[in-house]
Amino acid sequence: TLVTVSLSSFASEPIQPIERPADIDQSKAALGMKLFFDPRLSKSGFLSCNSCHNLSMGGSDNLKTSIGHNWQQGPINSPTVLNAGLSLAQFWDGRAATLKEQAGGPIANPVEMASSHKLVADVLKTIPQYRAEFQQVFGSPGIDIDRITDAIAEFEKTLVTPNSRFDRWLLGDTKAITARELAGYELFKSSGCTACHSGPAVGANSYHKLGLVRPYKTENAARGRIAVTGNKADEFVFKVPTLRNIELTYPYFHDGEVATLREAVALMGQLQLGRDFTADEVDKITAFLKTLTGDQPTFPLPLLPPSTEQTPQPEPFG
Amino acid sequence: TLVTVSLSSFASEPIQPIERPADIDQSKAALGMKLFFDPRLSKSGFLSCNSCHNLSMGGSDNLKTSIGHNWQQGPINSPTVLNAGLSLAQFWDGRAATLKEQAGGPIANPVEMASSHKLVADVLKTIPQYRAEFQQVFGSPGIDIDRITDAIAEFEKTLVTPNSRFDRWLLGDTKAITARELAGYELFKSSGCTACHSGPAVGANSYHKLGLVRPYKTENAARGRIAVTGNKADEFVFKVPTLRNIELTYPYFHDGEVATLREAVALMGQLQLGRDFTADEVDKITAFLKTLTGDQPTFPLPLLPPSTEQTPQPEPFG
Ligand code: HEC
Ligand code: HEC
Ligand code: HEC
Ligand code: HEC
Ligand SMILES: [Ca+2]
Ligand SMILES: [Ca+2]
Ligand SMILES: [Ca+2]
Ligand SMILES: [Mg+2]
Repeated sequence: TLVTVSLSSFASEPIQPIERPADIDQSKAALGMKLFFDPRLSKSGFLSCNSCHNLSMGGSDNLKTSIGHNWQQGPINSPTVLNAGLSLAQFWDGRAATLKEQAGGPIANPVEMASSHKLVADVLKTIPQYRAEFQQVFGSPGIDIDRITDAIAEFEKTLVTPNSRFDRWLLGDTKAITARELAGYELFKSSGCTACHSGPAVGANSYHKLGLVRPYKTENAARGRIAVTGNKADEFVFKVPTLRNIELTYPYFHDGEVATLREAVALMGQLQLGRDFTADEVDKITAFLKTLTGDQPTFPLPLLPPSTEQTPQPEPFG
Repeated sequence: TLVTVSLSSFASEPIQPIERPADIDQSKAALGMKLFFDPRLSKSGFLSCNSCHNLSMGGSDNLKTSIGHNWQQGPINSPTVLNAGLSLAQFWDGRAATLKEQAGGPIANPVEMASSHKLVADVLKTIPQYRAEFQQVFGSPGIDIDRITDAIAEFEKTLVTPNSRFDRWLLGDTKAITARELAGYELFKSSGCTACHSGPAVGANSYHKLGLVRPYKTENAARGRIAVTGNKADEFVFKVPTLRNIELTYPYFHDGEVATLREAVALMGQLQLGRDFTADEVDKITAFLKTLTGDQPTFPLPLLPPSTEQTPQPEPFG
């Protein structure tokens, strides 16, 4: 049957379709969505996870480096939270093993949300609707950073983007991509991009050196996985980013210094493969990469429960 | 019939139920919603209308004064955009006649979004989906500040909050509010609050002096309508704020210095009516005011079209 043919066809491809996660705790994810949008997770009362991972815009902020508390300039480009659950680890250098472990970071990071795990729990505890919702979700009263990050991570697991045109092609719909896009995919495979960008996330399943063949010049201070392992060999080794929704997550590279997708493709050819693509080759690969934009998560804008007289007040200034 | 009774009963009340606006251009409002959520309306690419009028949180930012471009401290408390279409004019001093006129202000205000009317139009023009949507909505190609603010205003007109418990009571559902809340309403009327807070918005239909009986002490520099009229008599005269959704729009007063609703009620008694309410009276009125929280606008989080290689880049720093 057609289904068998198409399944066997994508089984032999280095990229697999995105699937919706099966095991979501819906009420926990609904709580996590509220928390993801709640600026009271920051000291200022102004910044939420969604400020820097804007789900209206592909799950990142489209800035070179982020704006944090007090308009501090962040050290590195904000990666998308879309499909982050498919990553082998979190952050550019993979220093957090899980989404749950990751979520505690920005809350307490002084250049991001600048709050503390205790303060955030104290804030949420003063809000009756949150108290009730945590109790309902976790089966007993109590709000702490463990439960907060657990719920946020459950929400993030839902942020997958299935049904891209490329996935429909993988699944057997031969008209889902154009001949030129297909040619771009063939070139992507034949030139070796899939050595690093493969699997359902088209990346995010290995660490590799940026500048394998020719060095990448940047003023950015990040040095990659050496910060985690201490191994000199891990200097400039980064988690290979997902290329899912890459059309939406400009600017590119960990320093955000690469403005356009065509530039990123041309640079990858040079830096990682020692290959100078022609303009037409770059265009073809870029056209293919744009077929990786999937269905964006859609849901009603969450409504957040109001603070009370007991809620510690935000401190936006000073 | 019951309907006749209930209609005649609210006809004699100083407050009327909120009605949904009848004449919305849905496709224009849908475009306006995107613009309301689009941080590319700001120089930094980081601040949208929704940053300071967060529709997850009652349409304001719940800060004393706002955070604008470069984390500049704004001069005044951010009023809610909910039901703003019912106001006799926009801003605390009423200096903009319409929502459309208002919307041009923050875009170009250096302490808010810090962009310019030309730059924002230039940004949107480089985005094919926006070009197509403006053409479809306005019937001819072209994007300029007039169309941008027209669409935003159309979206804002939809941001009404009908069906509050108090409105259900007004419409004849005698169980929609408690006896204590009703007592609070009776006290609100009998003490004279409705002289200023009346109509469907429970305010927003007149200008009045803050500190009519006793002066209000504030370090805030705003002097109210004198800035518009130049009349000395208009010093400390402000647009009477709507009390719809007042539970959600803390902190209170134009300087945001009043943290709790109970405090705001007690102060209003003293400053405007020369009356010192007992704690129980304050509580009752506060309980009534909380029945004015209506159905919040709910809609799917808008998805924004991506920038292109031609889009002027955001300038978050410097
Ligand atoms: C001020 C901006 C900012 C805020 C606020 C913020 N993040 Fe991030 N986020 C970043 C940046 C920058 C990185 C990359 C940091 C790094 O790799 O060293 C990141 C990394 C991540 C990652 C890892 C993605 C990957 O592929 O490695 C996840 C997941 C994430 N953030 C989720 C969250 C959650 C959940 C919140 C709220 C609790 C949050 N972020 C708040 C800027 C922000
Ligand atoms: C040897 C591994 C490797 C190969 C081969 C490789 N990449 Fe990459 N790719 C990476 C790494 C690592 C990064 C992250 C670079 C950084 O730190 O900014 C990256 C980043 C990218 C980005 C930017 C992603 C983002 O979100 O910023 C694009 C686009 C990209 N690669 C496309 C390609 C294409 C197209 C090819 C083939 C021409 C290719 N890559 C080959 C490892 C590789
Ligand atoms: C940086 C914060 C900030 C941003 C961004 C912002 N506003 Fe405001 N908004 C305010 C403040 C503060 C006021 C009150 C100013 C005054 O009265 O002088 C206000 C007033 C208003 C009012 C008048 C409400 C009333 O009852 O008087 C409306 C309507 C409004 N804004 C809509 C918008 C729209 C639409 C945008 C985006 C185009 C926007 N705002 C962007 C902070 C902001
Ligand atoms: C003479 C006119 C007048 C009367 C009478 C009056 N108010 Fe007000 N009220 C105002 C004005 C003007 C403001 C705006 C004050 C400012 O500039 O911050 C206001 C503000 C408020 C606020 C804060 C709104 C916000 O969003 O910050 C509340 C709550 C309130 N009034 C409740 C009451 C109650 C309860 C009474 C009766 C006890 C009352 N008012 C009587 C004119 C009046
Ligand atoms: Ca646990
Ligand atoms: Ca990026
Ligand atoms: Ca307020
Ligand atoms: Mg809403």
